[in-house]
This record gives sequence, C-alpha cells and structure tokens, in this order.
Amino acid sequence: MEVYIGLDIGGTKILGLLYDQSGNELKREKKKTKAAEGLEVVIGQVSKVMSTLLESNEDTLMGIGVGVPGLVDASGTVLFSPNIPFENFELAKIMKEKYQVPVVVGNDVNVAMYGEWRHLGSKRTENILGLFIGTGVGGAIILDGKLYVGQGSASEFGHMVVNSEGAYCGCGAQGCLEAYASKTAIQKSIQNQLNKGRISLLRDLLSEDGAVLKSSSLKKAIDAGDDLATDVVNRAARYLGIAIGSLVNAFHPDRIILGGGVIEAIGDYMLPIILNEAEQHAMPGLLKTVAFNFTHLGDEAGVYGAYCLIQNQ
Amino acid sequence: MEVYIGLDIGGTKILGLLYDQSGNELKREKKKTKAAEGLEVVIGQVSKVMSTLLESNEDTLMGIGVGVPGLVDASGTVLFSPNIPFENFELAKIMKEKYQVPVVVGNDVNVAMYGEWRHLGSKRTENILGLFIGTGVGGAIILDGKLYVGQGSASEFGHMVVNSEGAYCGCGAQGCLEAYASKTAIQKSIQNQLNKGRISLLRDLLSEDGAVLKSSSLKKAIDAGDDLATDVVNRAARYLGIAIGSLVNAFHPDRIILGGGVIEAIGDYMLPIILNEAEQHAMPGLLKTVAFNFTHLGDEAGVYGAYCLIQNQ
Repeated sequence: MEVYIGLDIGGTKILGLLYDQSGNELKREKKKTKAAEGLEVVIGQVSKVMSTLLESNEDTLMGIGVGVPGLVDASGTVLFSPNIPFENFELAKIMKEKYQVPVVVGNDVNVAMYGEWRHLGSKRTENILGLFIGTGVGGAIILDGKLYVGQGSASEFGHMVVNSEGAYCGCGAQGCLEAYASKTAIQKSIQNQLNKGRISLLRDLLSEDGAVLKSSSLKKAIDAGDDLATDVVNRAARYLGIAIGSLVNAFHPDRIILGGGVIEAIGDYMLPIILNEAEQHAMPGLLKTVAFNFTHLGDEAGVYGAYCLIQNQ
Repeated sequence: MEVYIGLDIGGTKILGLLYDQSGNELKREKKKTKAAEGLEVVIGQVSKVMSTLLESNEDTLMGIGVGVPGLVDASGTVLFSPNIPFENFELAKIMKEKYQVPVVVGNDVNVAMYGEWRHLGSKRTENILGLFIGTGVGGAIILDGKLYVGQGSASEFGHMVVNSEGAYCGCGAQGCLEAYASKTAIQKSIQNQLNKGRISLLRDLLSEDGAVLKSSSLKKAIDAGDDLATDVVNRAARYLGIAIGSLVNAFHPDRIILGGGVIEAIGDYMLPIILNEAEQHAMPGLLKTVAFNFTHLGDEAGVYGAYCLIQNQ
C-alpha cells in the first residue's frame, strides 16, 4: 500500500502518524524529543519514530511531511528553533537522503493551520488566516489555497504592533500583540495584580515559584466569574480584536481560524469580545463577510497538516 | 497596429494613454472629471478621452485597463468611491459592451502600484507591498507577481492599528496609521500646535480658513529646519516605521515601495527615521533582506499600471 508519514517535532514530544492515500490513520508513534540532550539524540528519537511507523514491509513510502517550531526556509532547512537544537539544519535534505522520498518541512504553526484548513472540507475557501494563542501568539497565512511564508517568516502576527506606547514584548519591541494576548502575558498580568494584593481564585495556583498558569485553570477561574481573571482575559481579547481588525483591513480574508491552548480553553468566552473590538477597527462592512471558527484537530493538526502538505505535492 | 488604453479616473481629472504592444506611449488625453456634476457627466468625460485616443482608424484596440479611487470588486464593479459618483456601478461591463474588448478595472492605488512594480524591470521580485502617503494612506499588495485584494478590500494599510490608545482616525477607529502619517494628519497636528501659539514657517500658509498644506510647503519647512514641521514629520515617520515593522512581520515581503505626495516631497528625509523605527519592531533579521524604494512614475503610475494589467491578461 502507498503510505505517507506526517511528523510533528515539538519541543517536548515527537508525534508521527502513518497515513494511507486518503488520509486515514494506519499507525501512530510518540517519543520524547529529548531536546536538552542535543542534536544527535533528537535525530535518534526521530529515527525511532520513523522505524516504528515503517515496520511493515508491505508499504511503499511516498513522502514525509514535517512540522518544526522555528524558522524554516523554502528548502526545508531549519534556520533556527527556540526549543530544539536545530540551527541551519538541513532537515529536509537529510531525511530525503535517508528515506529516498520527497520531504517537506515547515514551521509547526503553518503546518498545523494547513491541516486545519484541509479539515474544513467544503467550507474551505481560498484566503485564510490562522491565529494560535498559546504560550506565545503564532500565525499562519493560506492564500490561493497555499501556505504563504514570504521570504520565510511571514505570519508572525504575535509581533504586530497594537499599542506602540504599551507593553514590552519578549522579542524586545514595544506594543506587540503577544505582549497582551499570549498565555505568558495573561499570567504575567495576573501575577502582577496578585502581587498588589488583589484577590483571585488563581492565588494559590500561582503562589509557587516557577508556577505555570494552565489554560484549564484559567477556564475554571473564568467560569467562576473570578474578577481578576476576567479583567485580564477581557483585555487580551480586546487586543486580539484590535489585531484582527488590522488583519482584516490588510488581508480581507475569507475566514480566520483561532486556535491554541487559550482558545481551546476559553475561546467561547473570548470570541464575542474579540469580534466586538474587531468590528470597531475593521473598515466598514469588511468584517461581516469574514467567517470565524475554532480549530478542530487539537494536537493532531500538526501531523495531519504535514501529511496534507506532502500528499498534495 | 494593436493598441491598449490605460485610464486613470481620478477625483479631479481623467488621464488616458494609448500604448502599443510594448508599452510605448502613442498618445495621451486629459479631461476634468467633473465629479460634482454627476454620473452622466463623468461618463461623458471618460467617453471624450476614449474618443480622442481612438481617433486613428489604423489601430486595433486590444483592451482597456482602468484605475478608480474606491472599492472595486473582482468583476470590475465600483462598489463605492469617495470622490466620484460611482456606486455599485458596473464600469467594466459597460465599457466591455461599448468598446467590445476586454476591460480590467481596479482600485487606483493597487493599479498604480502594479505599474510601479512592472517598472522595476529586473529588480522585480514576487512579493511586494506598497504604501502611498498622501491625503490619506493607501496600500497595495503584490504576491506571486499578482495583485492581491482578498475579498476585494485588502491592503488598507492606513487603517492598521499602530496605537490602540492613540489618535482617532477619520474612519472612526482609534489608533490607525492614517491618523498619524497622512498629510491630513500632519496638517492637523501642525494646525493644533499653531493654535497653541507655536512658531513655524508654516504659520502664514495655514492661517487662511480652509487652507490646505501642500507637500511642497512641507518640504520647504523641513529643508529650513523648521522645528514644528520637523517634530510632526518625525512622528509621522516613526509611526510609518511601526506599521512597516508590523507589515514585515506579517508578510515578510521582498520589497516595500513608498510613494504618494508626502514621500515624493520629503521621502529622503523620512526614510532613515522610518527604517530605524521599523528595525525596532520587525523580528530579528527580517528587515535587512527587505528592499525599499520610492515610486518612479509619479502621476503616470496609474495609467501605466492599468495598461500593464490589461496587457498581461
């Protein structure tokens, strides 16, 4: 049988799926990335996932798609990754040589969004933007039914300026969307207010050194009507709306897909606030023909998108 | 001889050029638009320009390209124009029927930018953004060598939010680029400071009711080191830089073309300030491979772009 492999190499785990021609899952394998142990170990982990998926002698591998967090150029070289020891690493070339099949490597957010787009089926239109609100804020652009990356790094929507005189971002610039709407920014704002003595259900959760705010805890606090969590999340949603207004004016897309841990947890709460603010910033009439939906595939968007990209080649 | 016509229907004048197959100008005609006199009169003016261009019996008209200020859909219907009495006006269809040739109608800024892009010749790359700084701030997107308009109204870069808690824009939203960087915004800021008693070379020019700041006067004031003009223009340039940083993060384009009356007058002064600010907002490394240039064609970009669009079909 002709088969394809979709790989999602993340900062903590590697997920691989074996697909048939029609996108049905045949097999899956998951391993720790072991990013801290260096390049050779990571490559070893990838090879183990691949070996398990390719155990059957009856399959003919047709191609491999890969998603990687970081900056990937058009040839499939990973220029830089924040979480994995890949630097100017010719991942596509190396895998092509090893497995003797076509290989496509892309940025993880782009690849996952491509998977979400393909999953839309009949609702699929040509021009789509994706926004992922997680630890950071990522983006993706699909134009004319193809991933658009410009010179390689397009769709860094987390680093569009929404408030030039506002908060500083981890990237060093002032006023980026990510400085307001990422889970990191939300946690920081909550922590700052807790330090001032404000009352919140989240106090105990965040009192430990190095505690990380989980999206599920945020959801509990929002569901309980916690004042502090509500204030901070409302602000994040408003800034998302401002950015989305700008994006609608710049791209006038058919659809915007929202995903990531924060959206998966409290997207239903945030969306009306987001849309209300976006309406105030989009040019008259433009927003009402833009469709919105949340992602559907969760953690499997990456492997499915990787499969779709290579199968489509 | 096979010929093409490029038309630029502006708020005050209609410019038409007759081109041969290779883009050489054969003839030109200019008439007032007479926009205030209503639709029929404007159409009459367009017809007069066309008649003059088509006087020779030896020419075979192959197609017509048209640029119009306002919102134009994919079929060439002008949905709305701020300066011309076109509303849901099927301009392309009407001209096709009258002249029995293919007709393309586009937004004036998009069409002009397409002309500037074609004019780049060997420096032409695939993904280009244009920003026009005039009375307002307009934009254009060329991706994969084609104008990108999304659902029709993309590239409204003047209405990207740069400072969500900042100045109100004519569009009703808060913090748009246009509220800082357009000539209208520059004049308003200067006027406000003059009203506070600030000294400036521009005082006499702007003291009349309804006086309009000319870009040439702005240039004189900047060249003379006028404090007030310098302050206000520096601020406009910084906000342009912020927006360009965001645009580089969103599109990672090959090139950005700057044009419009303000840039034609004082672009040389503004560019270093724009780039310095853009560098602070673009993700590390992205800006340095983006080329910048000013427009070259001035008032003829529109007709030339219109010719290129139809000749390319």
